[in-house]
Amino acid sequence: MEQTTFKTWAECAPRLVAVAAGRAPADLVIRKGQWVNVHTREILPDHDIAIAEGRIAYVGLDASHCTGPDTEIIEANGRFMIPGLCDAHMHIESGMLTPAEFARAVIPHGTTSMFTDPHEIANVLGLEGVRMMHDEALMQPVNIFTQMPSCAPSAPGLETTGFEISAEDVAEAMTWPGIIGLGEMMNFPGVISADPQMLAEIAATQNAGKTVGGHYASPDLGPNFAAYVAGGPADDHEGTCEADAIARVRQGMRSMMRLGSAWYDVETQISAVTEKGLDPRSFILCTDDSHSGTLVHEGHMNRVVRHAIACGCDPVVALQMATLNTACHFGLERDIGSITPGRRADVILTSDLTTLPIEHVIARGVTIANGGACLVDCPHYNWPDHARNTVHMGKTLDAKHFEIAAPEGANTVTANVIGVVENQAPTKALKADLTVRNGVVEGNIEADVAQIALVERHRATGNVTNGFVSGFGYKGNMAMASTVAHDSHHMIVIGTSREDMALASNRLGEVGGGVTVFQDGKEIALVELPIAGLMSDSPATDVADKAQAMVDAMETCGCTLNNAYMQHSLLALVVIPELRISDLGLVDVRKFERIDLLETSQ
Amino acid sequence: MEQTTFKTWAECAPRLVAVAAGRAPADLVIRKGQWVNVHTREILPDHDIAIAEGRIAYVGLDASHCTGPDTEIIEANGRFMIPGLCDAHMHIESGMLTPAEFARAVIPHGTTSMFTDPHEIANVLGLEGVRMMHDEALMQPVNIFTQMPSCAPSAPGLETTGFEISAEDVAEAMTWPGIIGLGEMMNFPGVISADPQMLAEIAATQNAGKTVGGHYASPDLGPNFAAYVAGGPADDHEGTCEADAIARVRQGMRSMMRLGSAWYDVETQISAVTEKGLDPRSFILCTDDSHSGTLVHEGHMNRVVRHAIACGCDPVVALQMATLNTACHFGLERDIGSITPGRRADVILTSDLTTLPIEHVIARGVTIANGGACLVDCPHYNWPDHARNTVHMGKTLDAKHFEIAAPEGANTVTANVIGVVENQAPTKALKADLTVRNGVVEGNIEADVAQIALVERHRATGNVTNGFVSGFGYKGNMAMASTVAHDSHHMIVIGTSREDMALASNRLGEVGGGVTVFQDGKEIALVELPIAGLMSDSPATDVADKAQAMVDAMETCGCTLNNAYMQHSLLALVVIPELRISDLGLVDVRKFERIDLLETSQ
Repeated sequence: MEQTTFKTWAECAPRLVAVAAGRAPADLVIRKGQWVNVHTREILPDHDIAIAEGRIAYVGLDASHCTGPDTEIIEANGRFMIPGLCDAHMHIESGMLTPAEFARAVIPHGTTSMFTDPHEIANVLGLEGVRMMHDEALMQPVNIFTQMPSCAPSAPGLETTGFEISAEDVAEAMTWPGIIGLGEMMNFPGVISADPQMLAEIAATQNAGKTVGGHYASPDLGPNFAAYVAGGPADDHEGTCEADAIARVRQGMRSMMRLGSAWYDVETQISAVTEKGLDPRSFILCTDDSHSGTLVHEGHMNRVVRHAIACGCDPVVALQMATLNTACHFGLERDIGSITPGRRADVILTSDLTTLPIEHVIARGVTIANGGACLVDCPHYNWPDHARNTVHMGKTLDAKHFEIAAPEGANTVTANVIGVVENQAPTKALKADLTVRNGVVEGNIEADVAQIALVERHRATGNVTNGFVSGFGYKGNMAMASTVAHDSHHMIVIGTSREDMALASNRLGEVGGGVTVFQDGKEIALVELPIAGLMSDSPATDVADKAQAMVDAMETCGCTLNNAYMQHSLLALVVIPELRISDLGLVDVRKFERIDLLETSQ
Repeated sequence: MEQTTFKTWAECAPRLVAVAAGRAPADLVIRKGQWVNVHTREILPDHDIAIAEGRIAYVGLDASHCTGPDTEIIEANGRFMIPGLCDAHMHIESGMLTPAEFARAVIPHGTTSMFTDPHEIANVLGLEGVRMMHDEALMQPVNIFTQMPSCAPSAPGLETTGFEISAEDVAEAMTWPGIIGLGEMMNFPGVISADPQMLAEIAATQNAGKTVGGHYASPDLGPNFAAYVAGGPADDHEGTCEADAIARVRQGMRSMMRLGSAWYDVETQISAVTEKGLDPRSFILCTDDSHSGTLVHEGHMNRVVRHAIACGCDPVVALQMATLNTACHFGLERDIGSITPGRRADVILTSDLTTLPIEHVIARGVTIANGGACLVDCPHYNWPDHARNTVHMGKTLDAKHFEIAAPEGANTVTANVIGVVENQAPTKALKADLTVRNGVVEGNIEADVAQIALVERHRATGNVTNGFVSGFGYKGNMAMASTVAHDSHHMIVIGTSREDMALASNRLGEVGGGVTVFQDGKEIALVELPIAGLMSDSPATDVADKAQAMVDAMETCGCTLNNAYMQHSLLALVVIPELRISDLGLVDVRKFERIDLLETSQ
């Protein structure tokens, strides 16, 4: 698999020096733009940029001495020249797209550098899956740096992943060319308790001189937080309020403020800079999770920067938070993040620093997008068969596999039910009295209690874990199944009809994973995600359309939730309270222990 | 030779986490100070700092949960707690002191990190000399990082050094534990012309992920400057005016502003921040060259920070320029530069942020100075004999070796004379008509024309290069000799009496180098510098006293120059215009070529 090789500054230096001195012509000159200088925080009119070998050779008032007869000229015509935008922390899989198709989707939005944690594929295909993502990342015309996933499984003992990540895996990955650091250390209780594996992963990263990503998802800013910081994570994107951001930055971490498809953590935190006046250098913007629809219809990092500006942030400061600050955090300030000599020539032309229209995008000295159109090839990795066939169910399921047996002789039972809460990731641990019919516990459409099942799909055990869920509002006979099932990514099936649940499950087995919705025995929506059951290698527009059709189908079946699909896919995430389902059973995440589905007192 | 081993954050993490969480006691707690936070640019009252294994474990409002019965307590009593100060670029040899004695001199001033370029010893003892400095540096209780010298000789073809530094030497040094980057790349014409050796040295440094130090000593900010920047140097301390500082920072370099014993480049440049409002993150303070007298009587980095504040800089911004900004530049922000978890516990207590009295200095968790007294051992390297005997003259000199033969039959000659200019490093190329007596050209005390000689001392060739110098104002019979003779560090002898010149030269051969002043056949001052002929391993106070006596002796002999000794020691620096002397002859630095001492038309 061929990877893009991109020359280092040192390799290009003789040519860059010759161009800057005027002894050799540049490959490309951008003429007469306003140089947005993220080092000094200035806007400097009438500047030229000369580019050679994909790197900046010269920035100054007049690059005519670098211009030869074969030099390509782009007229900035007084537009702003800003550095290509950086997404400091994100998961490509969240877009249901491969790295190549994700890149193709975000290039017209001016994203030229991404720091991506392939945490989802790590759960399905382990270190090899991470390597495949890493390799496809390095093939792209923009910079995709890989953060080595730190926590698979997320909750050891409470779920079974396809593969596990060890400290040795982390140490090995640190030697790969595209690895920039450790992905978000979600096991914050493990760090606080000095868990040897977690600290060994952090040590391997620090010893490699790389950056440890953090994830401290707790409002507690007391000694637990202090212990987490002392463990080594260098950033955190889980802050949700100003106090979170300030606490992190005071302690020497970078506060990554995210605006994802369903995360809105910039407005609540950026007042630390805009109102409290803190030094902005430690604040960074990111997306964390972007759905394909967001990428197609709203944007990517340009959306985040615009939003930060709309929140009152000075435009150049907001740009620093998406360029230089990010580059410095990852030790890349001499390679990306500013329009200065030696750096990769990642440049955006825009005529307005507030609305930030992305008019022309240059990466590594090549025009890759113009007027919203991607003009460059984003090569696909040759994903092997075992990465395309990851839905191993072991058998064809039928309705009987979704039957929940009642205790002998019971007419009703009290069941523990996962209660979905509108607009929140945490669920509620509910209880419901359910009717028994022919020895089988039945859901209750009127009371909005549907069935949920976790279908094991990594080891072909044929195991189906059954339970109940409330909150989707499904009516009639339906089922929805998804192999995007954070974090271990088995298959979550929810339905009011066991027949439809079986049909939906088998359908995903047939297409190699994705999301499907069945109603009255017929498929009414399908998003094929053949790669690891998580990603499509189709264009983002296609995936966005299918994903929209899938959400529409959920609505057709009676669901009225915002972010309905995300709610579905998070119900096996056994690290967020209160109640979740895993391949090992129902999990009470308040106590980190499994509980019975049915109350024994029945 | 034992080196201090200091545990990494990763090695300490289990203990740091346990202390922060309150499960284990700290070694040291500093109670109730004002936390000067260089990340946020805040001053936060009533904070405690807990320290374990020499690193910060916890900073917060109350460290009582980290405090055990054996925990040492230091009461800050409301004083400011600031990070230990960093000198971003300096030459230890300029203090005429070994690393150990330099450290001992600056510790009471609060300097806890130094970035040192042992350029002088590299000229005398080559890579091995650099290694010795590096090794003694690592033995110290404060952080001394070594920048690998880049340019020995400074002017190839115009001088002969004791040893030369090659690109291979640089690559090897990059593997040493204490090497932080490449020392100032002074050969800026070489970089601009893409000289393969200079670019190879830069490449070796960049490939090792380390920082390339710059030295662009020219007011030309046109294409030559651009070409230098494109070559890779990441900082520069040679700027002298606001425009220099702004140009460097805009181009992505760090502007290092220096206040040395004889450099005054902070006040002229810091207005880029204080008046022009540029983002201060790319501005850094340093000393470059500090004489022992300055260290003893005025201070070190505390003197620079005070001065920056006196120039109108906000105190916390000035502190950032001497702590966090420096750490970030060298990729060390997770190890030094702020008082935050994981970092080395380098903390100063001061009761005033403007006058900055250095009241208590802690490095790596240990009190190393209190009330101006150094309380810690600074171990000496066991310098081998060949590092202590570097003055190889090959023979005992007598007055005849300093005779300058006139052309056959001439009664007078016109000579090229090095003209010293008060308060400037550049010299003037003068001409003087001189009398011939017994076939020998004589100086002219009345016209202030003395003799100057460069005595070869590295290879024992016995070679003496003779010439004339004007500007010192010496009267009567005297001579002054110094083995500190930038950059190749042979021996510069200046005198009005050839007998005294011979006596002074032989005296330095006898004591193994240093500086001596003879008057009427008697030594009236001596600074012994036995190590490489450059440094003393005596305490700074002794060296400062002797250096002062030496300057007084120059005055006794009639010299009225400011920085008289520096003027003496720079007269062989064949990279600064206009006229210099080297072991190869008289050099016209305007043309980078050798010229005859006497005009041939005579």
